[in-house]
Amino acid sequence: VADELARIGYAGDEPLGQRRFAAFLELHIEQGPILEAEDKTIGIVTGGQGLSWFDGTITGMDSHAGTTPMTTRRDAMAALAELTLAIEAVALKNQPHGVGTVGEVEVRPGSRNTVPGTVRFKGEVRHPERETLEAMTTAVKERAAGIAAARKVDIALTPVAFKPPLDFDAAVVGAVAAAAEANGYPAREMISGAGHDAFYLASTCPTGMIFVPCANGISHNEEESATEADCTAGAQVLLDALLRLDAALSP
Amino acid sequence: VADELARIGYAGDEPLGQRRFAAFLELHIEQGPILEAEDKTIGIVTGGQGLSWFDGTITGMDSHAGTTPMTTRRDAMAALAELTLAIEAVALKNQPHGVGTVGEVEVRPGSRNTVPGTVRFKGEVRHPERETLEAMTTAVKERAAGIAAARKVDIALTPVAFKPPLDFDAAVVGAVAAAAEANGYPAREMISGAGHDAFYLASTCPTGMIFVPCANGISHNEEESATEADCTAGAQVLLDALLRLDAALSP
Repeated sequence: VADELARIGYAGDEPLGQRRFAAFLELHIEQGPILEAEDKTIGIVTGGQGLSWFDGTITGMDSHAGTTPMTTRRDAMAALAELTLAIEAVALKNQPHGVGTVGEVEVRPGSRNTVPGTVRFKGEVRHPERETLEAMTTAVKERAAGIAAARKVDIALTPVAFKPPLDFDAAVVGAVAAAAEANGYPAREMISGAGHDAFYLASTCPTGMIFVPCANGISHNEEESATEADCTAGAQVLLDALLRLDAALSP
Repeated sequence: VADELARIGYAGDEPLGQRRFAAFLELHIEQGPILEAEDKTIGIVTGGQGLSWFDGTITGMDSHAGTTPMTTRRDAMAALAELTLAIEAVALKNQPHGVGTVGEVEVRPGSRNTVPGTVRFKGEVRHPERETLEAMTTAVKERAAGIAAARKVDIALTPVAFKPPLDFDAAVVGAVAAAAEANGYPAREMISGAGHDAFYLASTCPTGMIFVPCANGISHNEEESATEADCTAGAQVLLDALLRLDAALSP
């Protein structure tokens, strides 16, 4: 990264990490349905869930869809179907927090008339407890191996990222809670389901986050929306919490 | 078609259907595993299975993969996974001949980090008996409706083609059988799993087909292969059957 920044003229003079922050706070919409459902204005974010990302390639055998008996097929798409439901089942077994998704899929050769011989996909599972997240990751691998054996296909799962769950700083979380209470905003503690800048800053200084409600919990969608009143409340808590932290942390 | 043929200068002088054929015979690899498995040289094709083709669009809701609880998701990919296994199950319930395939899939928006809100796919079921083929088509529709209701997604299935099963002409089938026997080739009656030119000619004249084995039943794949000896046997049966038909049909 340093080499590339130098190459494009964006490296700057200051060495990485020289400017220390006393604390970091991030204000964000919840990107989920909880605050709206419970009629709360402020989410006091205590930490973030962990995630386990994996890429997969399923290799079966291209063959004619009309002439290949069901019993001799090696159908990569049928195998992905079973694995997608298995990932969903692993998440459902680890409620209330577990989630699992297959979000990207490429089916080859891609003809109605041909049993698919190759599927590539990208998936993930998430959970706020490290032990459970690791168990979910293992369960997905085991289900993939079982499906591969039963369907005579190869399923290669490549881990892409494993981010363990994160606890935010107690003093920052406390400042957010005190600021919400002082302003009379209904609030609750919660974890972040998504990743945020704050997750990276948390390794360098005391860090926390503030959530405000969003309509129907929708995010990553053009319908994403938050009210002006909730955004104002969020900004007020951000200011008040920073003043509290400033007072507490100043020498 | 006539207009376009005229426009590009390929229309010709002869009106469509003026040249009548006394009979039509087509020689082809089986594109399936049966002849090889039973050590037969000639497949006496008695007809073709019917097929039911459909296009599908599943509409759920794009949402953040990390923050959307499993219970509030409307995941179009998970719905396709369930429907793909349902189509497979419908085919497996109608053995030994039923087949079912999902061969083309497009998942949108196509991000690991987003629960897919839209899936488009192309699928089919096939069976050699019309009544069963219709029942399989109905079963797929019913399963789709059930999955859509349970998962709060919309599943639109559009029929693209319905080709009923086809019986070849008894005299042509008989000529193929007699030619195989006269040459001492091990033979068996069978149906065609794939569509062929002969299926269209069958509506205009007495028609039949001859199959020869192919390696591992593989077709629509670069590994497609047939031995010279089997191709020679097929050509011999084609010639002998045509001579028999010529003798039988000549005035």
